[in-house]
Amino acid sequence: MSSRATLLADKPPAARGIARDHASLIVHGADRPGIVAAVTAVLSGHGANIVSLDQYSDNPEGGAFFQRTVFSVPDLTLRLPEIEESLSERVAGGFGLDFALRDLSVPKRVAIFASKSDHCLLDLLWRQKHGELAVTIPMVISNHPDVAEEVRSFGVPFFYVPSAGPDKSAAEAEHLRLLAGNVDFVVLARYMQILSAEFIERAGVPIINIHHSFLPAFIGAGPYAKAKERGVKLVGATAHYVTEDLDEGPIIEQDVVRVSHGDTAADLQRRGADVERAVLSRAVRWHSEDRVIRHGKHTIVFA
Amino acid sequence: MSSRATLLADKPPAARGIARDHASLIVHGADRPGIVAAVTAVLSGHGANIVSLDQYSDNPEGGAFFQRTVFSVPDLTLRLPEIEESLSERVAGGFGLDFALRDLSVPKRVAIFASKSDHCLLDLLWRQKHGELAVTIPMVISNHPDVAEEVRSFGVPFFYVPSAGPDKSAAEAEHLRLLAGNVDFVVLARYMQILSAEFIERAGVPIINIHHSFLPAFIGAGPYAKAKERGVKLVGATAHYVTEDLDEGPIIEQDVVRVSHGDTAADLQRRGADVERAVLSRAVRWHSEDRVIRHGKHTIVFA
Amino acid sequence: MSSRATLLADKPPAARGIARDHASLIVHGADRPGIVAAVTAVLSGHGANIVSLDQYSDNPEGGAFFQRTVFSVPDLTLRLPEIEESLSERVAGGFGLDFALRDLSVPKRVAIFASKSDHCLLDLLWRQKHGELAVTIPMVISNHPDVAEEVRSFGVPFFYVPSAGPDKSAAEAEHLRLLAGNVDFVVLARYMQILSAEFIERAGVPIINIHHSFLPAFIGAGPYAKAKERGVKLVGATAHYVTEDLDEGPIIEQDVVRVSHGDTAADLQRRGADVERAVLSRAVRWHSEDRVIRHGKHTIVFA
Amino acid sequence: MSSRATLLADKPPAARGIARDHASLIVHGADRPGIVAAVTAVLSGHGANIVSLDQYSDNPEGGAFFQRTVFSVPDLTLRLPEIEESLSERVAGGFGLDFALRDLSVPKRVAIFASKSDHCLLDLLWRQKHGELAVTIPMVISNHPDVAEEVRSFGVPFFYVPSAGPDKSAAEAEHLRLLAGNVDFVVLARYMQILSAEFIERAGVPIINIHHSFLPAFIGAGPYAKAKERGVKLVGATAHYVTEDLDEGPIIEQDVVRVSHGDTAADLQRRGADVERAVLSRAVRWHSEDRVIRHGKHTIVFA
Repeated sequence: MSSRATLLADKPPAARGIARDHASLIVHGADRPGIVAAVTAVLSGHGANIVSLDQYSDNPEGGAFFQRTVFSVPDLTLRLPEIEESLSERVAGGFGLDFALRDLSVPKRVAIFASKSDHCLLDLLWRQKHGELAVTIPMVISNHPDVAEEVRSFGVPFFYVPSAGPDKSAAEAEHLRLLAGNVDFVVLARYMQILSAEFIERAGVPIINIHHSFLPAFIGAGPYAKAKERGVKLVGATAHYVTEDLDEGPIIEQDVVRVSHGDTAADLQRRGADVERAVLSRAVRWHSEDRVIRHGKHTIVFA
Repeated sequence: MSSRATLLADKPPAARGIARDHASLIVHGADRPGIVAAVTAVLSGHGANIVSLDQYSDNPEGGAFFQRTVFSVPDLTLRLPEIEESLSERVAGGFGLDFALRDLSVPKRVAIFASKSDHCLLDLLWRQKHGELAVTIPMVISNHPDVAEEVRSFGVPFFYVPSAGPDKSAAEAEHLRLLAGNVDFVVLARYMQILSAEFIERAGVPIINIHHSFLPAFIGAGPYAKAKERGVKLVGATAHYVTEDLDEGPIIEQDVVRVSHGDTAADLQRRGADVERAVLSRAVRWHSEDRVIRHGKHTIVFA
Repeated sequence: MSSRATLLADKPPAARGIARDHASLIVHGADRPGIVAAVTAVLSGHGANIVSLDQYSDNPEGGAFFQRTVFSVPDLTLRLPEIEESLSERVAGGFGLDFALRDLSVPKRVAIFASKSDHCLLDLLWRQKHGELAVTIPMVISNHPDVAEEVRSFGVPFFYVPSAGPDKSAAEAEHLRLLAGNVDFVVLARYMQILSAEFIERAGVPIINIHHSFLPAFIGAGPYAKAKERGVKLVGATAHYVTEDLDEGPIIEQDVVRVSHGDTAADLQRRGADVERAVLSRAVRWHSEDRVIRHGKHTIVFA
Repeated sequence: MSSRATLLADKPPAARGIARDHASLIVHGADRPGIVAAVTAVLSGHGANIVSLDQYSDNPEGGAFFQRTVFSVPDLTLRLPEIEESLSERVAGGFGLDFALRDLSVPKRVAIFASKSDHCLLDLLWRQKHGELAVTIPMVISNHPDVAEEVRSFGVPFFYVPSAGPDKSAAEAEHLRLLAGNVDFVVLARYMQILSAEFIERAGVPIINIHHSFLPAFIGAGPYAKAKERGVKLVGATAHYVTEDLDEGPIIEQDVVRVSHGDTAADLQRRGADVERAVLSRAVRWHSEDRVIRHGKHTIVFA
């Protein structure tokens, strides 16, 4: 089992659906006429071919501008520094915009935090193994040992960090030691612990959570019980970036499923679990492909 | 135009999809073994043929029992009194259950309240005209004259009852005069006024409202603006019975539609309007066919 | 009624959601590096601000390239000729690409063909009246007089062109006389007649049809009866461009709705009708906003 | 790993969501007045409490009648023979109906056939392990060894039966030896082999297949390539009972997902795979809970 996983990881990126010599470029900042032309002129000037381009302005008059471009260029690794330099000069300097350039053949590294339930975790591990998610998973961290064997069967390291009791500082310190320098983002795959503001800041990478309701309905704990109590006809799930404000972070993706009076709270939980894993997998895929741009309390998603 | 509508209304019920000699029977109360057998034995004893039967118990051990049965029997009108008497004796008397028996060939009468926007109103009028809703519409009441001509083009009476200013008592008194004895239920088709508790009680008939969000998210006014502000990826609508507690009444039906960062608040409103009319039409159809049973803060919907 | 419609039509485009001084530009042809940069440089050179840009290549290596750009520029009407000239030189000449430039404040003109059923027709008329479709409707043509009054109540001219019997040439000749020079596209809103290849060619404008199944399932007549016979759990609808090959034209949009064993063929038809009108309205909106590009047997839809 | 699975299987049925002392009763045949009353009277006479009752008649006048009843009775195992005898007399004898009675605490035994792809297989194994499917899985059979380790990690026996070459008779003989007496139904979880009519007959149990298109569109091999070729905007999957007529068996469940011009055939396959596993899991759950009744080329699904 682990041997298969290892072999798969050894395949060159192209074999796993990640195109060689492709890069993503995110540009955002204050909108002005001429940005798209300037960006594409830089890329064209370096012999790059634009593979896809998505652009959005939240207000043509003085709003914010967002652009995601995927381009290919031969010998990308060699050319990236000079492309970056041109963008710094013409796009950052000329227009005062922020930009981020990334070699798409280098998958992002994600740490997954889980607790006892494994539906979201397994879905992510399975999709990664089958090449549906362009990420590597250097670690799964859990406050329970239940999923250890399952995680390791995918060839993924599992770390057990107990987190009982009200003081989470020791657990969070251990988390930070494990994460430091090893990951590009974190996914909370039904990790049933609240992260401290200090942890979020010190982690220094984006953290994606899956909440088991269609936020902002049923904020907080026990959403399925609340949904049953209120008698709703839909239950859902929300993937969002984690911020200091619990359940208030920018929403990446949401979906719902129809339920009826005949469904018990346990049925809602079972049906909701299918939505949770689907929503979280989409959010992780989009984030890993630089399709999500955070902007204040919102996200721009070029899906 | 009105002549067409009149001709349609003159058609016998069977021509409009309402089966002759069919009745619905709703039974509910405390669950006990033997209820279904007792009810079906009564119907069978009167020569009735069960066309459909839906049954639900929210807890087999001492919970609440709900049953909807549609049956046919020759000469229904003549037989209903004796069937009712048997049910009173065997079902109400024997089991202590409530029941309601209704000749399905007699459509329910609904008053529609509207304001300026006509999407929900027009959908109901159109479906009623085409025989998709087994109701008659003796009146549309509005606090604005805008939709008068449209309503009358369907051959439906329109009453303009202004409702400006904080004191709604005169308007509500006029509403009660118009409704008294003339309707079996009321539909608020984006009627942008809050009804007083006194009105709800004195109206004495079920009132169905369409709320433009997937409740309980975005309770109160301006849900689309709130949805835009929160950055949700779905907007929706909720049809519910009106109670004293604003936006808290039992939910009949809900649905959502996917939106994106590129949609403005106006786009959300436009896309939501399609969901609103679909959700409200389903709720009205189900209510008119006795498919919805209220139970505390919930509904049982045998759709 | 007609007075209201007239007043609405008199409103300036901006009031109806059509932005003043905005144009759409479609570019397509063989893919090569540098197209996006060249196009945006032309626009930028004329002082245009790019409002949105969608781009797609069906194969980065020698495939076909498609780009839809919406831009704004002050005094668009005056500037269009010189922008067109630059595009001819740099984009058509330099890259051998086709392009189409259109002032978005000039709505497309659509003729709607209908028969007896009015659900699709009414939905289009209503959305146009409420500013949801950026089109004008100079005429509705039908082979039955049933919907005349309804159409005229929207202030839209209605023409009755009987089409009984096997020889449609007289009817089609009349259609061509009515359409000539007056419309930019045609919509068949459940028009239950097959158009001849000659008519399609001589009409010389795109024709959009709504087929009442999720093509390619249930090609031909009577799809709901076939769906009932086959026992499917979903019924749907397909909007497509009309070609000589019946039900084989490029698909613009499709959707489905869940049905069950309990639904009769008439129920399927009723539930399908809701899907038909939704699918057709989306297709018409996208076509009217230049969001659909035909490419062989396919469409590129920048929705 | 296997130890966990074993422990789970050792739990009493009630702990896995299968209610003790509950039975399902399916009744079907020619419709006549009084069936529901007769069936419920038999159950009531034996002290049974009806937990749920679904009933359907495809034509009140001389059509076919279908009823699914779940009831509870103390000491079910002891009482079943006498209840069966009463049903034989009163329902089979009195009305000429077929019936099937089953103790719901005894899970059905299913053999899963798989090939190389594991998305449907894994979903079934995972749901069974988590108590979402009330079945036991005595064996997985595959014509490829790829999924052996994964299957065995769930504590489920795996049998490798090669099936290369045109003559499948040896493989099918081996299949029949493995199945004989050991299973109640078979699931083809993307088993990429066509079963002979003889095998289907000799297996003697229902066989459920997942087809990777929304049948009847794209019958036969390569549906995703055909879908890409046709330019559809939805792809889907269909779970159906296997009959001699390939892809023509009674449909149990279908669903679709939206795709766009930008999706490659590989993307369609990836997105379709999510629908396949969801549709197949629902079909297996419904079949295992006696919610599906076959009737000619159709199914009645009391979901």
